[in-house]
Amino acid sequence: MAASSSLFSSSMHMEMFAPKTSKCPQNFVCCHSKISYIEPNYLKPVCCPNSRSLSMNMSSKWEQTDRRDALHCRALKIEPAPSFSVGQKFQFDDIIEAQQFDRDILSAIFEVARNMENVEKDSPGSQILKGFLMATLFYEPSTRTRLSFESAMRRLGGEVLTTENAREFSSAAKGETLEDTIRTIEGYSDIIVMRHFESGAARRAAAIADIPIINAGDGPGQHPTQALLDVYTIQREIGKIDDIKVGLVGDLANGRTVRSLAYLLAKFKDVKIYFVSPDVVKMKDDIKDYLTSKGVEWEECADLVEVASECDVVYQTRIQKERFGEKIDLYEKARGKYIVNQGILNVMQRHAVVMHPLPRLDEITLEVDADPRAAYFRQAKYGLYIRMALLKLLLVGW
Amino acid sequence: MAASSSLFSSSMHMEMFAPKTSKCPQNFVCCHSKISYIEPNYLKPVCCPNSRSLSMNMSSKWEQTDRRDALHCRALKIEPAPSFSVGQKFQFDDIIEAQQFDRDILSAIFEVARNMENVEKDSPGSQILKGFLMATLFYEPSTRTRLSFESAMRRLGGEVLTTENAREFSSAAKGETLEDTIRTIEGYSDIIVMRHFESGAARRAAAIADIPIINAGDGPGQHPTQALLDVYTIQREIGKIDDIKVGLVGDLANGRTVRSLAYLLAKFKDVKIYFVSPDVVKMKDDIKDYLTSKGVEWEECADLVEVASECDVVYQTRIQKERFGEKIDLYEKARGKYIVNQGILNVMQRHAVVMHPLPRLDEITLEVDADPRAAYFRQAKYGLYIRMALLKLLLVGW
Amino acid sequence: MAASSSLFSSSMHMEMFAPKTSKCPQNFVCCHSKISYIEPNYLKPVCCPNSRSLSMNMSSKWEQTDRRDALHCRALKIEPAPSFSVGQKFQFDDIIEAQQFDRDILSAIFEVARNMENVEKDSPGSQILKGFLMATLFYEPSTRTRLSFESAMRRLGGEVLTTENAREFSSAAKGETLEDTIRTIEGYSDIIVMRHFESGAARRAAAIADIPIINAGDGPGQHPTQALLDVYTIQREIGKIDDIKVGLVGDLANGRTVRSLAYLLAKFKDVKIYFVSPDVVKMKDDIKDYLTSKGVEWEECADLVEVASECDVVYQTRIQKERFGEKIDLYEKARGKYIVNQGILNVMQRHAVVMHPLPRLDEITLEVDADPRAAYFRQAKYGLYIRMALLKLLLVGW
Repeated sequence: MAASSSLFSSSMHMEMFAPKTSKCPQNFVCCHSKISYIEPNYLKPVCCPNSRSLSMNMSSKWEQTDRRDALHCRALKIEPAPSFSVGQKFQFDDIIEAQQFDRDILSAIFEVARNMENVEKDSPGSQILKGFLMATLFYEPSTRTRLSFESAMRRLGGEVLTTENAREFSSAAKGETLEDTIRTIEGYSDIIVMRHFESGAARRAAAIADIPIINAGDGPGQHPTQALLDVYTIQREIGKIDDIKVGLVGDLANGRTVRSLAYLLAKFKDVKIYFVSPDVVKMKDDIKDYLTSKGVEWEECADLVEVASECDVVYQTRIQKERFGEKIDLYEKARGKYIVNQGILNVMQRHAVVMHPLPRLDEITLEVDADPRAAYFRQAKYGLYIRMALLKLLLVGW
Repeated sequence: MAASSSLFSSSMHMEMFAPKTSKCPQNFVCCHSKISYIEPNYLKPVCCPNSRSLSMNMSSKWEQTDRRDALHCRALKIEPAPSFSVGQKFQFDDIIEAQQFDRDILSAIFEVARNMENVEKDSPGSQILKGFLMATLFYEPSTRTRLSFESAMRRLGGEVLTTENAREFSSAAKGETLEDTIRTIEGYSDIIVMRHFESGAARRAAAIADIPIINAGDGPGQHPTQALLDVYTIQREIGKIDDIKVGLVGDLANGRTVRSLAYLLAKFKDVKIYFVSPDVVKMKDDIKDYLTSKGVEWEECADLVEVASECDVVYQTRIQKERFGEKIDLYEKARGKYIVNQGILNVMQRHAVVMHPLPRLDEITLEVDADPRAAYFRQAKYGLYIRMALLKLLLVGW
Repeated sequence: MAASSSLFSSSMHMEMFAPKTSKCPQNFVCCHSKISYIEPNYLKPVCCPNSRSLSMNMSSKWEQTDRRDALHCRALKIEPAPSFSVGQKFQFDDIIEAQQFDRDILSAIFEVARNMENVEKDSPGSQILKGFLMATLFYEPSTRTRLSFESAMRRLGGEVLTTENAREFSSAAKGETLEDTIRTIEGYSDIIVMRHFESGAARRAAAIADIPIINAGDGPGQHPTQALLDVYTIQREIGKIDDIKVGLVGDLANGRTVRSLAYLLAKFKDVKIYFVSPDVVKMKDDIKDYLTSKGVEWEECADLVEVASECDVVYQTRIQKERFGEKIDLYEKARGKYIVNQGILNVMQRHAVVMHPLPRLDEITLEVDADPRAAYFRQAKYGLYIRMALLKLLLVGW
């Protein structure tokens, strides 16, 4: 289920995200803190999304009662392995767009992500999604995002069904609708992470699916997990999100990343945003108007050095060549205008950081990499923790 | 090993499917019903395909006796986790074509599939293929079929090596024969699920392989797991396969699905088949002759409404554009002729169902989806259970 | 980290392969032979590559102490499952080129590979890489090599993130450098197996990565695991590597396989090498000079029958059509010149073997396959064990 329709629809109410009823018809009150281990019926799900048992790694002995079919077994003894009780149901059934999160939910998700940073191999947390199956349905290849989600799922003990290039290789090529594809794939998996070339595709998928959908980017539309990891990176690197100054640099017209980030930053207090971009790719008015309406201070500025010296975060982005079509000269001009290099580092404050959604070309020079304030590879890693958190929350709740 | 050669060769004898001798030279009598848990030698396979132990999840303590190589260990204590005894060997080494199954085997497989519907996460059944490795070797992309098999394998605890597009990406491009590829891949896995663009490819693979081969579609040839899931769907939805009326609708000339289904239905009693199709894609004589020879009643009929009102199953198929080449006008004409819509639902009996192998275009209108008699997405799900059953049977027997 | 630069740089010193410091800052002395099982802090890594705990399959009960986040748990009781103590650190951080191995290391690796041949499903060895995640980053498709590595990882309990065609599908297409890609992917995995179209790519990756890199072929450069499996095959099939005669046949100019093999054979005693090839693809002088400098006897010979009757190993290779460009006539002439067929088998000694790196076309006729001396499919399987050994050594040491 997904609600709301545009980036600037009025803020969303949680009640709009009712549980997918087909998944869990029971009342979500139970959330037992302990499972009675000897009860043979522990295998029945007591309360869970997808009606699958959450008790984990039960080890028991079995006696075969039916010679024909080894599946007819009877539990003799039960020795439970680590088991996580189910927490409260997550407020959302799907992750569709950045604006579905309010400040409180963001903080709570970040707390879970923070814990994910400590999930070691063989630690109990590393098995909380054991038995769950995630399908990555990528209609548009994106190795980085796909591997990040697949790594997240595996780090929590879950399994993955992968599709590197569904557009070319699937029945989409035969004219099947996205809705039909989703109805089929949901029969094979417990959660679908999808990337699509059309804006709104994730919402359409969520509307039809009985299992959770995570939008891993839908064309020029949304890429909510990127937005969350950006804010999480600020939290982790700067220690706070209120009362900060953020410079958004580069392609502000086409970058969905900076647009989502600006939107999310508006949920925090005393944030000041600087826009630094070549004229051809300036931040559009809708975001500026939105920030103004929310009382967020913002400013366009042509001087990256000045902005960098002021800011806690310099968020650089790639000028997207593919948006310029045949106007290569315009692209080349825009591309070289704002570069983060040693000179920029020299004026930045000690605690400040450089971020970038990656891939980068030369808008951040290689000399910057060695500086501890270069946060962009750490940022990619934070993305792993955010995705671990979201997978956990959607599949087994808080 | 694979036997028989054409769709209409005389019915197959089980003895033709001798065990792949290289896999299990021992006599297949043993099939112990209990494993003595404390015996240290339980780790040796007593009787199994592929000579790999089927005892599962043994947890024990190990003492290192060789500092150089941690693999030299000695068992100190053994605490067995759930363990399935090995049942009788499955009659077949490979799944090559629909006609290898007789009525009794079908019933027995369906019983296993029915049990697979109850395999929950963390239930004992969910680990019966633990440690087994399935390679999906797809020379022709088919996301739906591939994910269905991979999901089936993972739902039973097995692992997957995947190839989304082997034709383009493998040494086939360098001129390697299928036989050589199979000999290499069989060294890396325990079972191969293959899709190929050439009729007979699966049989060639099975002839050379020492591990089981499942044909997931070989060009215009066979797609036996689809045929099985179709019959299983009828069993599950109608409750019986004897004494039913089935309308096969759409592209009956090119659809291997309907051809295989007609063949399998002939194994049951008092089945009546209606063929409803545009003239250009009529059911071919070979199937009609076969049905006649088996005493199966069949009829060609131009009126879908009349057929739908009579039938237990309306099996709709897609008119395959790719078969019409440049004759687009013929295609368009054929395509619009028989549509399952609300009007058809209105005349169908209450217990009847609409089936479709998917993907569908507009030969079933979207309004039908909401009707409980729309069985096509359930049908896709039944495919998962059939594949789970077949993987289980081929790898660990009944 | 990788050292040395060319195939003929002077032999490498182990000290050059210092541990990747960021992976394991502690001294590598510890290597506890026993883990005290009841200690709650056993979950912290005591000593391991990648700072991840190597104790495996710990089963324990957990009590939830924080209702909000199920990750805050307290261990109540601990029942350890099979656990391998960590051995000595492997001498290398990465596998970049064949010449990084000396004779002693080769022997030791082969011993590990030999043990890998006995890793059965559910044997303790089958879980030594549990919780480790390998990313296969293939910029150039190679189904055979990729599946071999992925099978190796899974046979040891590890998990895989796979990329079938990273060149086309990744941000490399957007202009990202290999170094940036590696820095991102290393955040998602514990080891990277990469195949690249550029010579030296693996070394560049290793220079930047904090996790181990295995070179699975970099363009015309190196393919060290193939070189190792070739030598291992000789060891396993002939029983020794000293004092043998090896005929290298076919495309000696372009085959990196035969070049690496010649190089590695020079590390052993009393080896005699015969070069048998069409004039257009003769072995280049650099290798001949190298062999001479090492005192290895070699000879060019135009008569395959004579060589075959002398040799312990006839190593046939494919004439690579793609190297001939438009000179198809030259290719056809070269291709037909030296064929291993029944006639060759007839003169070969009983204990001798035919090897081939695969894929083969018709340079070995099909009649040879049935002869026990046809070792090429076994050779592919030995590759699995070599890769299991290397993954084990790089991730958990000796």
